[in-house]
Amino acid sequence: MDKLFGINSVMGRLQQPKGINRLLLRDGNLSARLAAAAEKARSAGIPCTRLSEQEFSALTKVNHQGIGLEVDHIRTLDESALYGLLDEHPEGLLFLILDGVTDPRNLGACIRSAATLGVHGIIQPRDRSAALTDAAVKTASGAASAVPVIEVVNLARAMKELQQHGVWIVGTTLDADQPISALDLKGNIALVLGSEEKGIRAGTAKHCDYLASIPMANASFGFNVSVAAGICLYEVSRQRSS
Amino acid sequence: MDKLFGINSVMGRLQQPKGINRLLLRDGNLSARLAAAAEKARSAGIPCTRLSEQEFSALTKVNHQGIGLEVDHIRTLDESALYGLLDEHPEGLLFLILDGVTDPRNLGACIRSAATLGVHGIIQPRDRSAALTDAAVKTASGAASAVPVIEVVNLARAMKELQQHGVWIVGTTLDADQPISALDLKGNIALVLGSEEKGIRAGTAKHCDYLASIPMANASFGFNVSVAAGICLYEVSRQRSS
Repeated sequence: MDKLFGINSVMGRLQQPKGINRLLLRDGNLSARLAAAAEKARSAGIPCTRLSEQEFSALTKVNHQGIGLEVDHIRTLDESALYGLLDEHPEGLLFLILDGVTDPRNLGACIRSAATLGVHGIIQPRDRSAALTDAAVKTASGAASAVPVIEVVNLARAMKELQQHGVWIVGTTLDADQPISALDLKGNIALVLGSEEKGIRAGTAKHCDYLASIPMANASFGFNVSVAAGICLYEVSRQRSS
Repeated sequence: MDKLFGINSVMGRLQQPKGINRLLLRDGNLSARLAAAAEKARSAGIPCTRLSEQEFSALTKVNHQGIGLEVDHIRTLDESALYGLLDEHPEGLLFLILDGVTDPRNLGACIRSAATLGVHGIIQPRDRSAALTDAAVKTASGAASAVPVIEVVNLARAMKELQQHGVWIVGTTLDADQPISALDLKGNIALVLGSEEKGIRAGTAKHCDYLASIPMANASFGFNVSVAAGICLYEVSRQRSS
């Protein structure tokens, strides 16, 4: 049995109640968002256990925000989790779209950086993507329960949905003229990283609002995709905190 | 037989002529730095072959700068290669110090980012460090011949030597108050990244001129060390190009 913590992870996972055994919720007064999550769990027939701060801390070192779920196992979610996250409309949405990353270790390292830098969800096409294998979960160093990994059947449709919810989509390519630091990344953003071998597919690039690159002193070698994702997420985070 | 290209890689490798079979040099007029490298090779008894631009391009996709070496195999270098690089005094020196990174894949991913972002040399203690194994070379995606990996017996001594040559040493830790973007990284810089498990050792941190952190929305998970290295090198590169 796995556990996951944090309001975004919980709200994402609650879109698909199958395999959820229990809601863990702080005792005392609840914020509006925690109350909404509790109501959602109740209406899905999920039992709830109230925990003290000490009990939460004994369960996890993660910033749990007073909420968690016990689930059968950590797994990828489908489109409806994405639509659920979007319908909540938090400010400063940040998504990471992996367009065909196939190495589970790269996926795991991306999940870890995403959790650390406040990503709300990782989105990847259901086909041609790395699975959330044990190797991926291990490389993620405990972060696999902290960020929902959402597998979509049709990536172009998911990107359109993001755009309709006010999310700007920034594709990263080796040869875009514009450095990523020249873009304003303070709004709602989804970053797109391409596959290890081929980068972003042409069909995906077409749906991006902007294309940008990471400036390189020597373009011969490029970056490991998880390093490139970390750099781009860092740039978002740097702009938002400055 | 391996080949390596670029003036910094060649100058670093020429400090230790053993296992060097041939200097590859552009035909036509030579810049002062290429001429100095040619003289150094000649005095070490290394034969030289002049190549046209077309012949260089047929050998490598790398930015070769008109110079290369044929070597027995890619290997780590010792202190003298570092002192050689420092004595050349190029401007904007950039080193990456890995204080106990033990996973060869992490080393490989660091080498790749270092080559892409213009690092002059990677320095690591000879003990307690990942070896330049086949896995490291493979993960480096061809970059292992582009950046010298220098193994030093005494890291503190190497750091002092760097400082005496006007290099500022910036250690990265999870808990430093100062974000790395708050530092001026435009001068000669050596970035220190710690081990996967324990970060920078206390003895190493003590020798740093500055300590800085990568700001995190959630500090529970941290970063893969190669991602952290990529982010810090990106920050140097961003500041230098702005």
